[in-house]
Order: sequence, then C-alpha cells, then structure tokens
Amino acid sequence: MTIDSTRRIGFIGTGIMGKPMVRNLIKAGYEVLIHNRSRGSVDELTAESGAVTAASSPSEVANSVETVITMLPDSPDVQTVVFGEDGIVVAARPGFLLVDMSTIAPANTRVIAERLQVAGVDMLDAPVSGGDIGAINATLSIMVGGKPEVFERVKPLFELLGKNIVLIGGNGAGQVAKACNQIVVAMTIEAVAEALLFAKKNGVDASRVRDALMGGFAASRILEVHGKRMLDDDFAPGFKLKLHQKVMRIVMETAHQLGMALPGAALVTQQMNALVGSGDGDLDSAAIMKAVRRVQGGV
Amino acid sequence: MTIDSTRRIGFIGTGIMGKPMVRNLIKAGYEVLIHNRSRGSVDELTAESGAVTAASSPSEVANSVETVITMLPDSPDVQTVVFGEDGIVVAARPGFLLVDMSTIAPANTRVIAERLQVAGVDMLDAPVSGGDIGAINATLSIMVGGKPEVFERVKPLFELLGKNIVLIGGNGAGQVAKACNQIVVAMTIEAVAEALLFAKKNGVDASRVRDALMGGFAASRILEVHGKRMLDDDFAPGFKLKLHQKVMRIVMETAHQLGMALPGAALVTQQMNALVGSGDGDLDSAAIMKAVRRVQGGV
Repeated sequence: MTIDSTRRIGFIGTGIMGKPMVRNLIKAGYEVLIHNRSRGSVDELTAESGAVTAASSPSEVANSVETVITMLPDSPDVQTVVFGEDGIVVAARPGFLLVDMSTIAPANTRVIAERLQVAGVDMLDAPVSGGDIGAINATLSIMVGGKPEVFERVKPLFELLGKNIVLIGGNGAGQVAKACNQIVVAMTIEAVAEALLFAKKNGVDASRVRDALMGGFAASRILEVHGKRMLDDDFAPGFKLKLHQKVMRIVMETAHQLGMALPGAALVTQQMNALVGSGDGDLDSAAIMKAVRRVQGGV
Repeated sequence: MTIDSTRRIGFIGTGIMGKPMVRNLIKAGYEVLIHNRSRGSVDELTAESGAVTAASSPSEVANSVETVITMLPDSPDVQTVVFGEDGIVVAARPGFLLVDMSTIAPANTRVIAERLQVAGVDMLDAPVSGGDIGAINATLSIMVGGKPEVFERVKPLFELLGKNIVLIGGNGAGQVAKACNQIVVAMTIEAVAEALLFAKKNGVDASRVRDALMGGFAASRILEVHGKRMLDDDFAPGFKLKLHQKVMRIVMETAHQLGMALPGAALVTQQMNALVGSGDGDLDSAAIMKAVRRVQGGV
C-alpha cells in the first residue's frame, strides 16, 4: 500500500516549520494525527480543520498510522520522541515507517535508523532547506537518506511539501547533504559580507558592485538575496542565525569525529557564535555582515 | 567624435587576454595599432589581418590614435607603459583617452588617473572577469571606473568585448569591483571544496549533494562550474590560480592600507599561496580543493 492511497499520516513537531507542512498535507486531502510538546499549535491546527486530530503521545500517533513524519528542533528531541517513554518505538512493527525531516547530526540519524531497522521499521532522514517560507509555499528542498524503494513510496508525500527532492544515499546521507548546504550558505554569506564591506570601505557603491557581480562567476542566490539584505541593513529572518549555528555545531562535531579540518566553515561558525552570544541569534543569517563590520570597529 | 566613428584604436598587451580582444575589435571593423613587450603575438596578429599594425613603443601607439586600451599583467607593467621611457604619457594631449583593462591595485589606478588628468587625459579602469574564454567569445564582464560621460563614449567599444558592462563609480571603482568579484569567487570555491569533501569523508556521493544543493540557497555559478571540476578532478584552467593569487594579493594590500580585516579572504589567500608555492599555480582556481584535501593528509 502506498502512502498516497492511505491518506492518513502522523506528524510530530508542529512548530514554525511543522505547522505549515501539516496544512499542506491537509490541503492535499490527508487526515493528519498530530502531536507536539506544547499545546498551542495543536489547538490551532485542530480548530482549523476537521482533518486534524490530536494524539497525546508519539506512541499513540504511531499506533494509529503507518507513517509518521517528525519535524523537531535537535537530536535529543528526535531521540526522545522515538525511544523515550511513550515513544514511537513502543508501537514499532514491520511496515511502519518513520520520516524524520528534522535537521540532526548524521551520526545520530544512522544510530536511530539502525535501531529501528532491528524492529523491522524503515526510516528516512529528510531534512529540508528553504525555511518557513519554503514550508508555507511547499517549495522546500528535501535531501533524503534511506532505501531507494522507501524513498519512492514516500516521494508523492514529499511532493506535497517541497520542490527539489533528491535521494542522496543511504541513511544519514540526507543529513550530510543538509550539513553541506549550510556550510556553503554560511561561507558564501561571509564572502558576500566581506566583499560588500570592502567596496564600502573603498568608497565605492556596494549596490553597483553587487549588480556587476551578479553577471559573472561571483553570482549566487546568496549574493542576490542575502547581499540585498546586507545592503538594506535588513536582517529580519528568513533563516535565523541560531538555527544556522545549530547546523554548524553539527558540522563541527562531525568534522571532529571524522578527524577532518574545515577551516572556512570553522571561521564562519565562530562569527555565528559571537553573534548569537551578543543577542543577534534571532536575526537572519545575513547578519554575519554585522560580525564582519564589528571587527572593523563598526556596528 | 565618438570612438565608434574613428574605427581606429591602440591596444597594448596582446597576451592570453589581449590577443582575442584585438581579434574581436578587428571583426567589428576596427584598425588596431598594437604593441607588446614580446614579439610572438604581435607577429601572429599582424600576419592574421591587414587591419593590425605593429608599433615599436607605447608612445608611438598613443601618438597615432585617440584611444588606447591596455591589458597588462600587473601594476608595474601599467606604470611603465604609461609613465616609462617612450610611455603613453609622452604623447599625452587633451582628448586622448586611456582605457586600462588590466587588473591592478585600486590605489595605483587612482594615482595613474590623477597624473593623466593633469595632462588633460581621461582614463577609465575597466578590469574584466570571464577569463580567456570570455575574451574569445566576447562575453567578458567589464567593471568600469571613471567619468560617466567617458564611459558612455567607450561603451560601444566595450560591447564588442563583453556582455555585462557596469559603470561602478569614479576612477578605481572598477578595480574595487574586480577585487570584490575575486573575493567572492575565491571564498565560494573554498566553501564548495569544504562541503564536497565533507560529503565524501562522510561516505556520501558528493555529486548528488551538488545536484541537491543547486536547487536551493547554496546555488551558485561556482558550485555549478568549479564544483563540477572538483568532482571530475579536472583542474585545467579556466582562470589560473597564480592570477587569482595576484588579485588576492591586491585585496590583502588594499585591506592593509585601509586598516581592514578580511578573515575569510585572508584564509583563502593562504590556500592559494600554498598551492602556487607547491607548483600548482597554473591550475584552475578550483584546485583550492587540493589545498583542502592536503590538510587532511590527502593529495
């Protein structure tokens, strides 16, 4: 039975990302059984649609449906929801499927997937990029790790939530791709910030520099979007620095485990640490420009 | 008189970039008076077309035409061609125009422009990006500094050589924009190299990661073009590391003069220094991947 034909699904973690994703599933005709630690979004979603039902625990969700999506803040949250008291694992049975769309460490994902496999449960790691706007507009990029046949089963579901859906490899590969994404995004933001500030310090109109650079090899989505934010001094998120910092912590921990040096990624992680530490964690990642300015004595 | 109507122009520096640029001018119906330190390309171009004439010195070129383009390796070359014995300045007269398309330090450009202005000579700094392929195909990005009215006069000429032609600001602004371009390109290459190697060290197919990342905020021309070169381990230039290193030296010198810290740009400059020092200067900039690999004990 494909997921598409059951039209029932569980969803755990209805926060800033999960809530609009649940709405997109409802819009596509799904019944969604939800669970969340805090009640606010649960009440909101059940009030909005008769297709949403609240469950009191992850195990209750897992007992009632064949497939559960999790969208949680960090590794410990996923571990608790899966293996904690009243966790999904209580209801684990062959044929049951967990799709973890949270961004967590690849090593943790692999351990969870292996433990579930013992109980006959398949799992996909399917972290996303695109932020809450991507979640609302169903334009998320979804990077998937797991078995190809499981991916094919879940693909119609992913297509209700995102646009660029790629199976990267086995379990954990989705999380690795997400980490790679955040490495590139972070360092490109640092690059654009340094270049635009260099222009300004030289007395040159940084906005014209950005225009010129968009026509050549320096062109990127970051120069376009985050470069504009820097020029406008508009650091409203977008994707919050503190969330980006979390992914860079995962990158640095993974690099440590692998015995691997990532000098550029490390540098940008330090910028983020300083920004989050000085109260800028709720700003957009483009605020890395603030760290670049501060070291020059600017604000 | 617009440059377009005279159909005669001087061109000094007919190397890997200058030679195809001269050919594009000839193709458009220009007569070109050329000069180059070494004879090889001069003989080649004069043999190719009756529209090309060789001059024995920069001053001879400047005496015979109203406008001279220079395309030279570095600041000292431009200074010698302009102010040296038999330099352009010998033939300086009001109405004469110098278009320096070399990539040199912004501070040097400003000094040259000021000294020429005293003699009533206008100058544009108009460095390019796009490499020899861009020069051959007339698809160079041209970043221009100088007076708007001079820019308008020269624009038809630029349109024979490139595609994305932007007046950035006054004298030196073109060089600043070029420096910004190389900062962003260098750091984005480092970003892509670290991310793709991170994927590989995690046992994940880096090619699929690149595919996935091209669909989101990590998308860039560098991820597309240089990312592909890294995956293919193909570091044939393209734009040579030793030339990119030259621009990063200009960036670092300018940052020193300004009293400005560019931590990311400094890091990548060190990668380039190590690569050029170990004999990889003639490889493409994408070979920054080799520096990232080497520090892990790879090759």
